[in-house]
Amino acid sequence: MRIPLDELRAKTDGALRFYGYDAEERRVLSEVLLYAQLRGNNQGIIKLIGAGIPRDAASGPIHVEHETALSARLDGSRQHGMLVLNHAVDLALEKAKASGFGIVGSHNTATSTGAIGYFAGRIAAADCIGIVASSSPGSVAFHGSTQALLGTNPIAFGIPSMGGSLVLDMSTSAIARYGVLEAQTAGAELPAGVAIDADGAATRDPSAALQGAILPFGGYKGAALSLIVEVLAGPLVGAACAGMADVSRNWGNLALALAPALLVDGETFLQQVADLAATLRAGTRLPGVEAIQLPGERGDAIRTAVEAEGALEIEDNLWQELCAVAARAG
Amino acid sequence: MRIPLDELRAKTDGALRFYGYDAEERRVLSEVLLYAQLRGNNQGIIKLIGAGIPRDAASGPIHVEHETALSARLDGSRQHGMLVLNHAVDLALEKAKASGFGIVGSHNTATSTGAIGYFAGRIAAADCIGIVASSSPGSVAFHGSTQALLGTNPIAFGIPSMGGSLVLDMSTSAIARYGVLEAQTAGAELPAGVAIDADGAATRDPSAALQGAILPFGGYKGAALSLIVEVLAGPLVGAACAGMADVSRNWGNLALALAPALLVDGETFLQQVADLAATLRAGTRLPGVEAIQLPGERGDAIRTAVEAEGALEIEDNLWQELCAVAARAG
Repeated sequence: MRIPLDELRAKTDGALRFYGYDAEERRVLSEVLLYAQLRGNNQGIIKLIGAGIPRDAASGPIHVEHETALSARLDGSRQHGMLVLNHAVDLALEKAKASGFGIVGSHNTATSTGAIGYFAGRIAAADCIGIVASSSPGSVAFHGSTQALLGTNPIAFGIPSMGGSLVLDMSTSAIARYGVLEAQTAGAELPAGVAIDADGAATRDPSAALQGAILPFGGYKGAALSLIVEVLAGPLVGAACAGMADVSRNWGNLALALAPALLVDGETFLQQVADLAATLRAGTRLPGVEAIQLPGERGDAIRTAVEAEGALEIEDNLWQELCAVAARAG
Repeated sequence: MRIPLDELRAKTDGALRFYGYDAEERRVLSEVLLYAQLRGNNQGIIKLIGAGIPRDAASGPIHVEHETALSARLDGSRQHGMLVLNHAVDLALEKAKASGFGIVGSHNTATSTGAIGYFAGRIAAADCIGIVASSSPGSVAFHGSTQALLGTNPIAFGIPSMGGSLVLDMSTSAIARYGVLEAQTAGAELPAGVAIDADGAATRDPSAALQGAILPFGGYKGAALSLIVEVLAGPLVGAACAGMADVSRNWGNLALALAPALLVDGETFLQQVADLAATLRAGTRLPGVEAIQLPGERGDAIRTAVEAEGALEIEDNLWQELCAVAARAG
C-alpha cells in the first residue's frame, strides 16, 4: 500500500522507541533504515519486524580498546551494529581529517549493519574515499564447497566527486541473505544460480537455500573477494570468522577513510571523477538499455522520486507488522 | 616444448639485455615476468616478443613528485610500469614500517605491470595487508554499454598469514586482455560471455572482441568494481582515465600497505588467517571438486611442480621468438 513518508518516519521512530533506543540512537538507526527503504534496497524496515532489533540486555557502552593516530578498534559492547559502525565512521573521518587516513574496526556486535552504502556515502560526503566492510555468520559457500562458511560479506566503496558521490554497496554473495528471507516470506522463487541446497544441488527454493548455502557472485573471483572481506571485517578487527567458536556472537565491521590529497590535488580529483562519471554515462548503449547507471544511481533515482511524491509503496503485511510494533511503544 | 628453467631464465635475461635494461632492472623485470610464467599466468614472457618492452626513448629517472609521511606520488617518467610499481611498493612498505600505513601511486608510464599479484605478494610477505591496482587504456565496456572505455583494471590483495600468504590477483574484466591476444595468436575461440563485437553482439572471435569490447566479470558488480579501480589507479594517482585525452600515454598504479597491528595484535592476526584458510580448505566439497583452492594456491601448486622438475612447457612459437630476441642481445 501507499504510505506517506511522514507516516513511515513516525512508525519507524515508534518501533525504535519500543525497542528502547534514545533520541540520538533513533536518529542514526532511522537514517540507516530509511536510506535503504527509500532507495528500494531490501535492508530497510523489514529489520524492525519479526525478531526486530531490541537492545541486547548484556550491552554496555561502545568504547575504544586500542588507538593510534591513524586507527582505532572499538568494542561494540553488544550495541546495535548500525550504531557501532556509525561511531567507527565518525572516528575514521576525524582521523582522516587530521592525518589524511583513518581506519577503525569494531567487534562484539551481533546485528546487521544494514545497507553499508549509507556509511560509505557518509565518508564520500566528507570528500574522502571510503571503504566499509562487514562480517556476519556463515551463509555463503566458498568456490567448490557446499558448506555455508562465509558471511554474505558486503563491501561498500564511496568515491567523492564534484558531480555527486559514487557509492558502490554490494554483497559478495550472489544474493543478499535478506533477499532470500524476502523471497521466503513472499513465497517467491530465487533467481537461478544464486544458491545450493544442503546436498550441493542448485536450488531456487528459499527454504532449501537456507538449509544449504548462498553462492558467491561472479564465480571464483567473487568467492575470493568474499574471503578478503571475511579477513578485513574478521581477524583484522578482532571479530570472529569462519571456523571460530564465537562466530554467531562476534561480528565485525571496518571503516576506512582516505583523503585524495594524500596523493593528488583534492579539487582536481573531485572534478576528474565527475568527468569520468559523465564519460561513462554518455557511452554508447547496448540495444534495449535506456540509461547507463553508475553505482548508487538506481537508488538515488528511486529516492528522488519517492521524495518528490512524499509517499512510497510498502508491502501490506510489512506495513501492518511495523504499525503493530510501533503501537506497542505507546 | 619442454624448456629447462635455467635456459628460460637465461633467454629472459638476454631479451631484457636486448631492450637495454641494466642488471638491477633485469632482476626486477625477470622476477615479475617469471612469477607469472611459472604460475601458469598469461602475463609472462609473451610480453618480451612482438612489440616487446623496449625502454621508452623519452624516459627519465623515476622520482617522487609529492610526499607525506603516509604517502607519495611517483612520476614514472616513462620507465617500464613493472619497475615503477616495484619502486612504489618499496616506498609504501617503508612508510608502513614507520607508520603502519603507506600508500604510493604512480603515473606517466604506458606499459603493463604484468601479474600484479607479484606486488601484492611482496607486501604480504612483509606481514602487511596489500592492495595493488593498475589502470590501462579502454578495452572493457561498462555494464549496459558497448563502448570499450574502462581498462581491464586488475586489482590484487595480499593477506599475510602464518600459513603462507593469500594472494588474490584478478582483472575486473571477464578475461584479461592478454587472454584475448593469446587466443588470437593460437587461433582459438574465447570462452562464451566474455566479449562483445563492435555492434554489441556477443562474440567468441578474439579479433571481433578487440574491435568491440571485453565484458566485466560478474555482471553489474564487476563493472562497478572496474570503475572503482579506474578511479584508484587513475585520478587518485595523477594518471588518466576513461574520457581523458592522454589515456594511452598516462597509465597509473597504486600500492597500499597496511600493518594489521594498527588494529589488532599482529601475531594473532597471522594465526587467525591461517586458521581461516585451513577451515575453508577443509570444507565439504561439491561433487567432482578434488580440492578447494584459496586465492593464489593454483599458481603456487603449478610453480612448485615446475621448480621440482626444473623445467616447464612453453609453446613452440613463443619460445622461438623469445630466443630470437635474446640472440639479438649478442
